[in-house]
Amino acid sequence: MPITMYDLAGDDPERRFSPFCWRTRMALAHKGLDFETVPWRFTEGDKLPQPNAGRVPVIVDGARVVHDSSAIADYLDECYPAQPLLNGPVVRGVSKFIQNWTETVLHLGVVRLVLLDIYRHLGPADQEYFRSDREKRFRSTLEDVVKDRETRLPGFRASLDPLRRTVERQNFVSGETPAYPDYIVFGAFQWARAISDFELLAADDPVRAWRGRMLDLFGGVARRSPAYGD
Amino acid sequence: MPITMYDLAGDDPERRFSPFCWRTRMALAHKGLDFETVPWRFTEGDKLPQPNAGRVPVIVDGARVVHDSSAIADYLDECYPAQPLLNGPVVRGVSKFIQNWTETVLHLGVVRLVLLDIYRHLGPADQEYFRSDREKRFRSTLEDVVKDRETRLPGFRASLDPLRRTVERQNFVSGETPAYPDYIVFGAFQWARAISDFELLAADDPVRAWRGRMLDLFGGVARRSPAYGD
Repeated sequence: MPITMYDLAGDDPERRFSPFCWRTRMALAHKGLDFETVPWRFTEGDKLPQPNAGRVPVIVDGARVVHDSSAIADYLDECYPAQPLLNGPVVRGVSKFIQNWTETVLHLGVVRLVLLDIYRHLGPADQEYFRSDREKRFRSTLEDVVKDRETRLPGFRASLDPLRRTVERQNFVSGETPAYPDYIVFGAFQWARAISDFELLAADDPVRAWRGRMLDLFGGVARRSPAYGD
Repeated sequence: MPITMYDLAGDDPERRFSPFCWRTRMALAHKGLDFETVPWRFTEGDKLPQPNAGRVPVIVDGARVVHDSSAIADYLDECYPAQPLLNGPVVRGVSKFIQNWTETVLHLGVVRLVLLDIYRHLGPADQEYFRSDREKRFRSTLEDVVKDRETRLPGFRASLDPLRRTVERQNFVSGETPAYPDYIVFGAFQWARAISDFELLAADDPVRAWRGRMLDLFGGVARRSPAYGD
């Protein structure tokens, strides 16, 4: 029986844009596991299997329900040890630094460029929730958050220096082959691609070449998903 | 025969402050290898064993001379595989991200706070070289680089968020035990400690608690070296 993954979707059920869900989607593909996804919206908390924290990803594997992308990665490595996502305690430890960089520097940088584009891809119920929740969080209208984003783009690109230097000297964040740290970082770029035609990366940026390698993985699972740009 | 390590020193030969040398010093201690250090100054390029790139660290291990802290870490893991510094290709890959974060965000942040303090700890010949070289690099006097450093301190501390979140949830960057990624990051803090009484970290910062754990390692090798503060 395939694993079921609850995956954040836009008004178009095929448009999948959660950076955390993309970590899990890439992890399932990395493991070569059979899985199917169920589109889920922000306002469908009651449609998730128990236990959950009101958010996705949530996976159902037979009788097991696992939620939270990090817990899912650990679960997959425990139950399906071939093709490890995080091979050993040092990789797990160090990947936390990459996760924390991603969730502070990278996610915050991305969301301040594409927040309004997320809103535009939601259905009416989700739009109402999203505007109210995010405007409280940012203490600003969605429109004001992304205002002057062209002006802020060079600063965003400069903030990618640690990633850029890494992937211009090796194929993946994890070395010569991809592993979970790559999926953590890639989730942020796939999030933006899925809902925005605002290109985050210059054509000759080594980060863009790495994103291309990520899009090619596992038969192009990320490239085939509805999105903008290359 | 112990390994010899050429180590950047101030006018006081016991004051060792290179962030790159501290990586190597901690790596040698991590391996439990017998080593001795030779103080070396910026203007003593001709005193280094061949081959070298005019910089330290350089180590001499019997007939072998190895220079560059990354090459030394690889050499030590190859010749002394017990207590690995970078255990396996994924740890090596991911540690490059941490190194690139350290050398862009962290080193640049630190040097803009303590550049003049480095100068103050050098002998006359090194002072002349250092002022000329660094003022060209920063296109500014040493005094102007560190001007208003109190004002910039909150921004520096905010830039440590990825590190802070990591070491408040696990003992070391590398997980529950320290490894080379910790030494890469720690080198930057030990650099500052060695030459400046300007405290980079608030008393209750989890990064400061982690620095304390690093100072305690290997019989307190880093804590015993001449420095300021705790």
